[in-house]
Amino acid sequence: MNKIVIAPDSFKGSLSAIAVARAIETGLHRVWPDAACVLVPMADGGEGTLDAVLSAGGERRIARVGGAAGHAIAAAVGIVERDGRPLAVIEIAQVVGITDPAGMAAPVGERSTQGVGELIRHALDLGIRDFLIGLGGSSTNDGGAGLLAGLGARLLGDDERAIPPRPEALAQVRRVDVSALEPRLAASRITIMSDVNNPLTGARGATAIFGPQKGVTPELQEHYDGAIAGFARLAEAAVGRRAADNPGAGAAGGLGFALQLLGAEFRSGAEVIADLLGLDAALAGADWLITGEGRSDLQTLLGKTPQVVARRAALRGVPATLLSGGIERAALPALGGTFAGCFSLVFGPMTLAQAIADSPGLLADTAEQLGRLLKGVPRAP
Amino acid sequence: MNKIVIAPDSFKGSLSAIAVARAIETGLHRVWPDAACVLVPMADGGEGTLDAVLSAGGERRIARVGGAAGHAIAAAVGIVERDGRPLAVIEIAQVVGITDPAGMAAPVGERSTQGVGELIRHALDLGIRDFLIGLGGSSTNDGGAGLLAGLGARLLGDDERAIPPRPEALAQVRRVDVSALEPRLAASRITIMSDVNNPLTGARGATAIFGPQKGVTPELQEHYDGAIAGFARLAEAAVGRRAADNPGAGAAGGLGFALQLLGAEFRSGAEVIADLLGLDAALAGADWLITGEGRSDLQTLLGKTPQVVARRAALRGVPATLLSGGIERAALPALGGTFAGCFSLVFGPMTLAQAIADSPGLLADTAEQLGRLLKGVPRAP
Repeated sequence: MNKIVIAPDSFKGSLSAIAVARAIETGLHRVWPDAACVLVPMADGGEGTLDAVLSAGGERRIARVGGAAGHAIAAAVGIVERDGRPLAVIEIAQVVGITDPAGMAAPVGERSTQGVGELIRHALDLGIRDFLIGLGGSSTNDGGAGLLAGLGARLLGDDERAIPPRPEALAQVRRVDVSALEPRLAASRITIMSDVNNPLTGARGATAIFGPQKGVTPELQEHYDGAIAGFARLAEAAVGRRAADNPGAGAAGGLGFALQLLGAEFRSGAEVIADLLGLDAALAGADWLITGEGRSDLQTLLGKTPQVVARRAALRGVPATLLSGGIERAALPALGGTFAGCFSLVFGPMTLAQAIADSPGLLADTAEQLGRLLKGVPRAP
Repeated sequence: MNKIVIAPDSFKGSLSAIAVARAIETGLHRVWPDAACVLVPMADGGEGTLDAVLSAGGERRIARVGGAAGHAIAAAVGIVERDGRPLAVIEIAQVVGITDPAGMAAPVGERSTQGVGELIRHALDLGIRDFLIGLGGSSTNDGGAGLLAGLGARLLGDDERAIPPRPEALAQVRRVDVSALEPRLAASRITIMSDVNNPLTGARGATAIFGPQKGVTPELQEHYDGAIAGFARLAEAAVGRRAADNPGAGAAGGLGFALQLLGAEFRSGAEVIADLLGLDAALAGADWLITGEGRSDLQTLLGKTPQVVARRAALRGVPATLLSGGIERAALPALGGTFAGCFSLVFGPMTLAQAIADSPGLLADTAEQLGRLLKGVPRAP
């Protein structure tokens, strides 16, 4: 084994992608001390994206912006170089994430994405015009109104009264004024990373599908969905572009809509990160690739990181093995079409808490066993 | 992959060795439909030995003998041919096993191995003179006095009074009369299968080491140990052979002593079964061997079935992989010296009960994944 590419996603709630990759490398080096292990810690645009991107170098800048409930929070922007230009990488979960207790303490009707707009402005102030924005893990469902407001748009109600960009107030919006919208956006290029392809509103929209888990009660669902639809029509009219029906407009409670209204391009997070981190170059001449994620199931084959990585490996003739925290057995026949073996890190019955507590050691040990098998048993056609 | 030998032990409390082997074969055939899988279901002389031996053919005879508490039980004797002669295979757990509720209902002081002697007599009546006796899983701690009594020896106390062959009475024995001891034993060959090498009495003896788990209380421990030591000296004097200090005399509460007193040879159960089932012949020309057991740890390397099987495979240049229900992670570095990869059948955190309930499917799926890895990833030196 001369060259092995290790390109896992993070194990959400347990280990960062870089920690997963390092643990796997540790195990493989016990079997092949001289093997070249190329670590490409992956991400899908959600939690851990910034860490994965910055693992290959770059700068982490902290900005103070408003959180989902308007409270001040410190959010990071990753700045890396791409094609000779600085690129800002933003995880919106750093601003309006479900892991922020202060944001979650406010009702969903009061939560806004205004801070995300402020964070983009912060990057614009640094002279950056290229953006990569990961939309996973939001606590908000404001149709992206907050983002537009944070970037200078004004929501106006009866008598041109200013309306706050919150779900509970959106039904009062009569006009969206984009005259003061951040002009530097016109010269900017924004790429959205998300694997959500729902439209903004309706039966498959943000409020219907993702609203309940954010606290939208059944009684409020129709009201919010209608208010967002009305706001979206006004915003589309003001900007002169349509976006509400685009796939992914419903991502992150409507941030997908607002960003596409600003001209953003929608891409699979894992594909973007793979490009950014040079996965294809890493695969050149590789003998084997190991990828993984916290838990694998049939969803894995619908564009999750391991599938994206395995497809790129397959194009270069590199076999890909899946090493995850857990694997849904019912998915094994389907996963078998993509992966040369699917393995979990556990060595016997144990609780999830035990597996999480020991995950680096378990990963190293499992990777070592895979290596021992490959090294010890001659290949069979 | 042309030829794969599948030689697991049983997964105790879950699956027989033959069921384990078949499940692994099922998984491998999904990867290599044309591979020749040679199933050699193994055993170590304990629970499952008879099933493993009879999986290759033979006859199962049922005899009614006394259980540990003297109650009537139906015990099986396996009869197979070896070197042109009939061989009786006996699992003493079928007579005095810890899984017999009626036997366990009596206090350990009242439990006796007399029924094992009766079962041997039954086989002698069938004309059999070759015996393979597995000593695992006994509930008794009678120093083997019951076995000798069942075969015709008499325990005598003061005034030549007959003393029952039970731990609680052994201290009263003054003389062991072997004049009526089964004469056909002289023409018989008995092989004991056990991996216990403790002596009969003392700090490492049967009562001290295995007594507590059979119900010997701390207060009775010294008394029983002394009574057994005294009985053993008398029995040795009567037979004219010493055996109490032999390794393994303390197996099965002293059955190891009584059988060695009768001239039995002590062998590793797994080695005997491997010989009996022709493991070496099966390994000829094999590309890979899979073995396993319910749970693997450092004990595995002290002569348990997977180690015995792997050593024979190594002598023939066949790599051996371990596939067990669970593996103690701390043992992995040591196991790595023997096995080309150590794997558990689970695909993520789960309870032992879940793993046991699904074990055939889990085994098949895991074997399939090992096959997919080997098939998909080119060999590396």
